[in-house]
Parts: sequence; structure tokens; C-alpha cells
Amino acid sequence: MNSIPDNDSFILRLSCKDSIGLVSEVARFLSDRRLFITESANFGDPATGLFFYRVKFIPESNAFSRSNFSSEFEPVAKKWGMDWELRDAKVKPNVVILVSKGDHCLNDLLYRHRTGALNINISAIISNHLTCGWLAERHDVPYYHVPVNKDNKPQAEERMLDVIEDVKADLVVLARYMQVLSDDMCRKLEGRCINIHHSFLPSFKGAKPYHQAFDRGVKLVGATAHYVTPDLDEGPIISQAVEPADHRLTAEDMAALGRDTEARVLARAVKLHTEGRIFSNQNKTVVFG
Amino acid sequence: MNSIPDNDSFILRLSCKDSIGLVSEVARFLSDRRLFITESANFGDPATGLFFYRVKFIPESNAFSRSNFSSEFEPVAKKWGMDWELRDAKVKPNVVILVSKGDHCLNDLLYRHRTGALNINISAIISNHLTCGWLAERHDVPYYHVPVNKDNKPQAEERMLDVIEDVKADLVVLARYMQVLSDDMCRKLEGRCINIHHSFLPSFKGAKPYHQAFDRGVKLVGATAHYVTPDLDEGPIISQAVEPADHRLTAEDMAALGRDTEARVLARAVKLHTEGRIFSNQNKTVVFG
Amino acid sequence: MNSIPDNDSFILRLSCKDSIGLVSEVARFLSDRRLFITESANFGDPATGLFFYRVKFIPESNAFSRSNFSSEFEPVAKKWGMDWELRDAKVKPNVVILVSKGDHCLNDLLYRHRTGALNINISAIISNHLTCGWLAERHDVPYYHVPVNKDNKPQAEERMLDVIEDVKADLVVLARYMQVLSDDMCRKLEGRCINIHHSFLPSFKGAKPYHQAFDRGVKLVGATAHYVTPDLDEGPIISQAVEPADHRLTAEDMAALGRDTEARVLARAVKLHTEGRIFSNQNKTVVFG
Amino acid sequence: MNSIPDNDSFILRLSCKDSIGLVSEVARFLSDRRLFITESANFGDPATGLFFYRVKFIPESNAFSRSNFSSEFEPVAKKWGMDWELRDAKVKPNVVILVSKGDHCLNDLLYRHRTGALNINISAIISNHLTCGWLAERHDVPYYHVPVNKDNKPQAEERMLDVIEDVKADLVVLARYMQVLSDDMCRKLEGRCINIHHSFLPSFKGAKPYHQAFDRGVKLVGATAHYVTPDLDEGPIISQAVEPADHRLTAEDMAALGRDTEARVLARAVKLHTEGRIFSNQNKTVVFG
Repeated sequence: MNSIPDNDSFILRLSCKDSIGLVSEVARFLSDRRLFITESANFGDPATGLFFYRVKFIPESNAFSRSNFSSEFEPVAKKWGMDWELRDAKVKPNVVILVSKGDHCLNDLLYRHRTGALNINISAIISNHLTCGWLAERHDVPYYHVPVNKDNKPQAEERMLDVIEDVKADLVVLARYMQVLSDDMCRKLEGRCINIHHSFLPSFKGAKPYHQAFDRGVKLVGATAHYVTPDLDEGPIISQAVEPADHRLTAEDMAALGRDTEARVLARAVKLHTEGRIFSNQNKTVVFG
Repeated sequence: MNSIPDNDSFILRLSCKDSIGLVSEVARFLSDRRLFITESANFGDPATGLFFYRVKFIPESNAFSRSNFSSEFEPVAKKWGMDWELRDAKVKPNVVILVSKGDHCLNDLLYRHRTGALNINISAIISNHLTCGWLAERHDVPYYHVPVNKDNKPQAEERMLDVIEDVKADLVVLARYMQVLSDDMCRKLEGRCINIHHSFLPSFKGAKPYHQAFDRGVKLVGATAHYVTPDLDEGPIISQAVEPADHRLTAEDMAALGRDTEARVLARAVKLHTEGRIFSNQNKTVVFG
Repeated sequence: MNSIPDNDSFILRLSCKDSIGLVSEVARFLSDRRLFITESANFGDPATGLFFYRVKFIPESNAFSRSNFSSEFEPVAKKWGMDWELRDAKVKPNVVILVSKGDHCLNDLLYRHRTGALNINISAIISNHLTCGWLAERHDVPYYHVPVNKDNKPQAEERMLDVIEDVKADLVVLARYMQVLSDDMCRKLEGRCINIHHSFLPSFKGAKPYHQAFDRGVKLVGATAHYVTPDLDEGPIISQAVEPADHRLTAEDMAALGRDTEARVLARAVKLHTEGRIFSNQNKTVVFG
Repeated sequence: MNSIPDNDSFILRLSCKDSIGLVSEVARFLSDRRLFITESANFGDPATGLFFYRVKFIPESNAFSRSNFSSEFEPVAKKWGMDWELRDAKVKPNVVILVSKGDHCLNDLLYRHRTGALNINISAIISNHLTCGWLAERHDVPYYHVPVNKDNKPQAEERMLDVIEDVKADLVVLARYMQVLSDDMCRKLEGRCINIHHSFLPSFKGAKPYHQAFDRGVKLVGATAHYVTPDLDEGPIISQAVEPADHRLTAEDMAALGRDTEARVLARAVKLHTEGRIFSNQNKTVVFG
């Protein structure tokens, strides 16, 4: 038996108050409709009392209808108070990437997109600089140059939000975008905006983390992908990684060393999010890796 | 809500041919009996067509009876052709440790046992040397000195098997036991005997792996915990880890460097096995970590 | 040719203002006296303008005299303004370990000491509790029970310093010693007192770092060995490591997971220090690993 | 004092029989000529009796002449029987990349070349397929399409060697080039041809290593960069890394997972080689990282 193509799969995601019988009811719902579970993960958090469930299934029959499923599942969801969604795995999420001058994360995302390692549409690239325009062009992605300065920030964000809305973005990725988003914009993108911070958070929040790391003399440098919230660098953490450092490295060396880590950690977070593997759990994440 | 003590938990483990409705039926069986699932993991292997399920639950009522559960579950198991078992999480598995002279893995297991990191009974230590006797004594574990030579191997193994049987061992751990077990003994312990091999298998099978690693000039040295089978160092792999090495290390340095890794990898495998997290899947393992 | 026993080796450590000709002069000094270099490392820090040099050598002749070396090297050292010392590698440094109730780091250090992985004398164990007394006894190390409370802190520290002085401690190790040392005691032990902090500093300074890590939802938990200074958890970092964590771990699970990391990181720092591989470089370390 | 630009640096590399006075003589040679050492590393291998030395220096004066240095150093080198070379750090090594269809390593090398992370010229890309031509074009690197089949292998290799000679290649990189080179070609490129093998050698030599890894059920998958010799996958190892794997991964998943590791390991090996940090030591490498 070969590996089953995602094209035929659907993903059901739900969360609600934890309780006996949840898995049973959902699993029965699926098996009664001859929907074959190929992957499932669940977690009941004793700290918050919440339950999270992600299940991927393939309908035995070609006649499967998403809207039928939804109308039948709605009463179940209501009974348990579920937040839920059903995704068609063959529909690629729309992603908008924001970037400033440093292009290592952007390049990495474009490459993984091209090879299919990331199953997404890159719908637009927005930048406050012209630097990365050629990369966008080579990959045939629309590039929006939206300069930001003290005076035009609200208008600039307005314009970015227009683009994000126009392409129906499922996810906005800050791939080394060096402007702080306004509280308002953060709130509008809550739960669908991922930033890569170039340190092992909560160490070295804010500006120039590699210089902070150099000054502190740490022996590992890291990167953190997290959801963006109005609290700068305080949003729920998705993924982190570190690399060894030592006394021979300047702050610039650390930055160079960290670029690979940043790109990998961000790509991992984008993959997890767009595959529906992440749930928000108050100020944390549940990640079914 | 605090973390639930294991004392109240039970673990259901099962495997069978994969099919629609398995999770549903088991989950319903549990919820119908008001058994609260606190942890569950399953995997359907497309390569072998087998399905593996481990679920941990807490009965809502104190009146839960293991034998009632078993007689009620038996028809379900029969219907699907399941291999299955129900474990009481508060019953500690009996472990017998075999060791030769090098005591780093033994010391580590004894320490983790003492602190409760490993929830096991260490029922006996068997060695072909007297070297580790003092450690056994300090931890109040019976120590059986069973010398092995060309002439007495069958008798020596007989004696070891007697001890293993007497203490009703659920697991036998070769914690740097430097004798090759006979095919017969391997078969008698199949599925419940774990060895630590001091290389990243399948590299450097057989004797003196660190010397082999030194001769080959590898840049990482590793350790592998695996189930013992009659094929030397070919049994299903449970856990592996590596450490960086470089040209400055002698074979002896590599051996010293590797000791920590060996101890950690072996302890991890013992923990996974005794918590019922490992399934055999032909010549491989499914590990619900 | 076999690996050369440390017994015949000497270690020269020096630091001074960086300048052309330093390596040349020291290397010539050694070769003129037929002292065979078996290991050397140096680093000139462009940020501080300081130069650090560690060289290990074996005299060709048995007639080597440390005091002759010293009187001959002194003019060289003076000329360049060196801080320097010559160590006989066969003389084991004296180490005093401070511990409270958690014994995983202590047990690890005692084990490595016993097997020779750490080439040190453990001269004394001091604790504010009786809990670890049995471990000290088993390893035949004097155990000093020095309870600390609000009222007796100065006297308690006095008593500890007496022990440290009596045994001529080259290094004091805080192996999960849960009392904050006074500024005065920190200063008295400056450069020869290593603490293990159970987080990836500078994240989660102060008390209960695993609970802080849990609350923040980090995806890696770590440990940091650093020199103790009057600024709590701010001293020069020696070594750090991390382990992956996820949403399933409670704060207690994280603490359990972190214990191995703490023990390894601390043992590594003790090894580096007692082999003379660490130099202080303002608020950082230079580590010749 | 800022970090010193490489443009002003020179690198002296040498190896010879180990002996007292080597470091001293070389260091004196440099300091007598007012050449400021900014980085140095040496290693005497007790197993082979060989000594390796790499030293990077900056002349105090602008009048430094490489040919003067050489004629003055030659007698020293002769006296000790040194293999040696002097490199001007601002001269970028010429690199030729061979690739088949999989472009992840090629893309990574091109990206690092563009950003300056690899200080090299990519002089040519040679492929037995047309697949990667567009990448070459985008980065303005000449692309040679040299198909290989049973009948034309000698001619094809002839043509490739012509290109390699024409561009005066200092290094040939097999960036997932899926043809086995002839013994003759291996010998012609000895010491300057690096291959990336997609397994943790010596495990899984030869074809389809991820399938071999899948069949064996390993829990880590790896990659190895090594010098090419006529013995397939047996050349001196330069760099290795691994990533965790588990039962859920198909062979294809492992291959996808491994791509990042391959690209990183190969880029690291190319960087080490082109910075003159690797010495051959019989069938192993000495790497000054």
C-alpha cells in the first residue's frame, strides 16, 4: 500500500472543554460515514481544562460532500461547545510574506514553496524596501513596495491590510520584517500572523538580539517563531531552535550563524500552521508535530 | 486541576490489521464505561497494513474492575483480531539488569530508579564479573554472579533464565553486558530484552565500535538501544542519539564521550518499554514518545 | 604511539594585552627548554584587546623543575604584562560541592569523580539539609551540614568559608544549592565558584525557572553553568544546553526532563574549569574546549 | 577595535612529521616579519605522528610580498620536511558544482554564494540533466549539460575534466550528482572533490540510503560530506549531522527531512575546505572548525 496522496484527505480541527466521550463521539461520527482516519492527535490540557483534536481522514466514497458533513456535524459541535473547522487538504492556504532587507527567510520560503515542501500559495510579498523585488520577480510573486516612516504608518498598514484582504490570506508571515506592527494591525491578524524572532525567546526581546547575545556571552544562539500579538515578542511560541556559539564569534558572526536557524524554524512554523497542526491554548500553543 | 497521579490510570495497548472504525469502537467502548481518556496515540502503517493503539484512561468510578473490562473487551478484540493487553499503571514492571564490568549504564538506571524517574522494580542484577557487586549492595538489589566461559555457557544461561523467571521479569536490560547471548536465549526473551549498543547502528556492529568509529574518522559518535534478537545488533531499534566528535579524540576518548549518550539512550528505551509505549512492527518499532 | 598520560604534562595559562610576537616568544621559550607542546589554544579578542593562551606540554627530560621554569618565565611575563600560572596536570584540583535537597547533579559529579572522568578531589560536600548525607558517606566524602535561616546567614557562610579554606578549594560548585550567597561570599569566591542554573540564561532568572518556562510555553528547556558573581544569575556563562519540550509537559515534567541536562552541563563546566580551559574575559568567558 | 577584514589576511597551512620546536619556529618566523597572528590552530596526531598547522595573519606593513615570504620560508619548510602553502584570503577559490536533478544542495550553495556566506567563485555548474539550468541562468553561472550513459562515460568525464581544468577549479562539489565517478576521475580530483552522501556514513553506503534507513527503522537520519576517493563512499569524512526520525515517516518523508541536513552539511564542508581548514590525515581529516 502506497502513501496516500493528500489530495483525497480532509482535516477536521476542533477544540472545546475537555470531557469523557469526545474522542468516541467524533471517531464514531467519522466511521459511521466511512471516513478512514489516517492521522489523529488529541490533547487534554489539565491546566486549562481544554481539549484539542486534529484528525485527518479519507472518504471511502467519491461522493463525500463537505457541506453535508458540516450540516451533520454542526449538532455534535453545538452539543459540546466546539470551535471547529473542516479543511480540504488539497486546497493550498494563501500566504502573504512581509520582509525588509534581509532575504534569507524569504529565499528559504520561496524555495520550499517551489519544491512543494510547503504546500502553500505565496500570494504576495510586501516590503518596506525594494531590495527583495528581484527575488519576487524570479518566483513570479506580486511584490508590493510599501515604505513606512513616522508619518505614514497608519496609511502604510492600511495598504498592507488591503493586500492581505484582497488575496484572502490565511497566513501572514513576518520573514524578518523589521517594522513593529501597530496594536490594531496585530489584533486584526491575531492567530494568523507568524513572526521569526532572532533569539531564543524570552531572552533578548526587542531590537538587535544578536548584539544582546554577544554582550551577554551566551554559548548558544537561537531563533523563535511565534504568533504576533500586540505585546511585542510575547505572543504564543510555535517553534524554537539553537546553535552552539563560542567566544570567537562577533555579533555579526552570530547573526550569520543564526540565519540558517531562523529560516528553518520559520519554515517549520509555516508548515505546522498551514497543515492545521497548531492550536492556540491561551498564551501558548498546542502543536501536533 | 493538578496532574493526575498514575496510580489511578490504566493502559490499554492493542494492535491488529488496520481498518475503518477501530478508533471509534475502542473510544466508544471506553466512554460507554465512563473511562476518561487522558492520553492516546495510534498509528496505521501503510507499509505493513497494521494498526497500533495505546490509550491511557482513568475510571470515573472506584468500582472499575480489570477482569470485568477484560471479559467485556474480549469480543471486541476477537472481532478485529487484536493483540491486546490492559495494564494497571500503578503496578511497576520487574526489570532484571545484566552487566559486565563497565557500570555507567547500571549506575544511571539505579539512580533513575531511586529518584522515581523510572517507575520500575529492579528485581535482580546479573553479572559475569564481581565488579559491580558493591553498587547492587548499596541499592539493595540482589546480585547474581554468573561467570561465563567457553565451557559453561549453556549452564550459565540456564541459571540466568532461572533468575529471570523467578522474579517474573517483564524486561531484561543488557546494560553493557559483553557476552553474546545464544540464539535460544534471545528467542526466549524476544520482545522483552533491550540492549544498548555503543554505536549509531547499523554502523559499527559487533565488537569495539568506538575503535571502528575512530578508524573510520567519523564526526559523530552514537548509541543505539534495540530489542535483542538472534541476529546480533540487528534487532528492532528503539532509540538513538549522537554526540559530536573530532580529530582530537582517541578511541578511548570517544568511548568516554559516548558513555553519557549510552546511559541516556538506554534509560529512555527502558522508560518507553516499561510505560508500554513501544510496539513491534515486524523488524521495526512503533514508539509513542 | 599511545596517548600520552597526563601525569607527565604541565599546563601554562596566560593572558595579557594582545600584541605581535606573543605566541612566538612563548613557543620559543618552550622549545628552547625541550618542552614538547601536546595541545595549545589561543585567542585574541578584538573587542577587549586581550590575548589568552593555554598550552600543555611534556618535558623531554625528567629533570624539569617547575620553580626553575617559573623564575625563568617571570621576566617574559613581566615584559608583556601577563597574568599567568603553571599547573602540574597530575595534581588534582580540590573541589567543594554545595547542595540542598535535589541530588541529581551531586550524584553525577560523584559518579564522574569515581570513574575518573573528572580528574578532581572532592574535598567536601556542604549542605543546608541532611538529605544528601548518605551519598557523601557512600563515596567517603566529608559532609558538612550547615543549616541556613534568616538569622544565621552570616555565621553559616562563615562556617562554609572555613571549610572551603581548610581544604584549599580550587573550585566551589553550587550543585543545585538553593540559597542565594551574600555579595561578600560571592566576591570571596570570584572566579572559582560555578553555579548551575536550571534555565537557558538570560531567560528565567531567579526562582522556579521551570515554572516560568512552563508559563511562557517555550519549546526548549535548558540549563546554564556560570561563574557566580554578586549579580544573581548574571555571572559569566561557561556552558549551556537545551532539550526539546512541548505542550504535553507540566512544569514538573520539564523539571524532570531538565535534570539530565543540568547534570551534563555542570559536569562539563567543572571539567573545563579544572583542566584550566576557561579564562575570564570581562563579563564573559573564553573557553578552549 | 573592529573585526579585521579578511582582505588583508593570509593563511599559512603546513603539515609535517611532529617534533619539538615547530610552533616556535613558525611563530618566530611570523613575528620577525611583523605578521600579526589573528587565528591559529595546530594538532599533533599521536596515531600517525603527523603535525598540522594553520595560521592566519595580517602584515603590519602594506609592503608584504607573498613571493618574498615564500622564498624566505622555503628553507624552514625544507628543514622540517613540510608540505605547505600560503593563501591570500582575498582570492576566492574557484568551485565547480556537479548536480543531477535534485537541486536543494545546489540552490543552497548558490544562495550562500550570493550572500557572501561562502567566499567562493562558482565557476561552472555541470549536470547530466537539463533540470537545473534555469537556476544556473538566474545566478549567471555557466551551465554545462553533459549527459552520461553506459556508452559515453569516458568521453563525458573527459569533457567534465576539461571544464574543471579550464576554470582552474580549486574544488569540485558533487551536490547530489547521482553518477559514480570512474576511479581515474576520482584520482585526478583527489583532495579537491567533496561529495554529499545522504546517510550517516558508514551506514547505508551506495544507492537509495533513505530507503535503506527506512527498511532498518533507524530513529535518526543523517548526511555526510566526504572527500571523493575511488572507494565509493569510503573517502575521508569532513562533516556529519543527523535529524530525528520516527515510525510515521516513509522513505520519501525521510528524504524530504534529510534535504535540509544535506544542504547544511555540504555547505559547511565547502566553507571549511575553501577556508583552508581541512587537512588530510591518511584516511581521515583534521578539521580546524
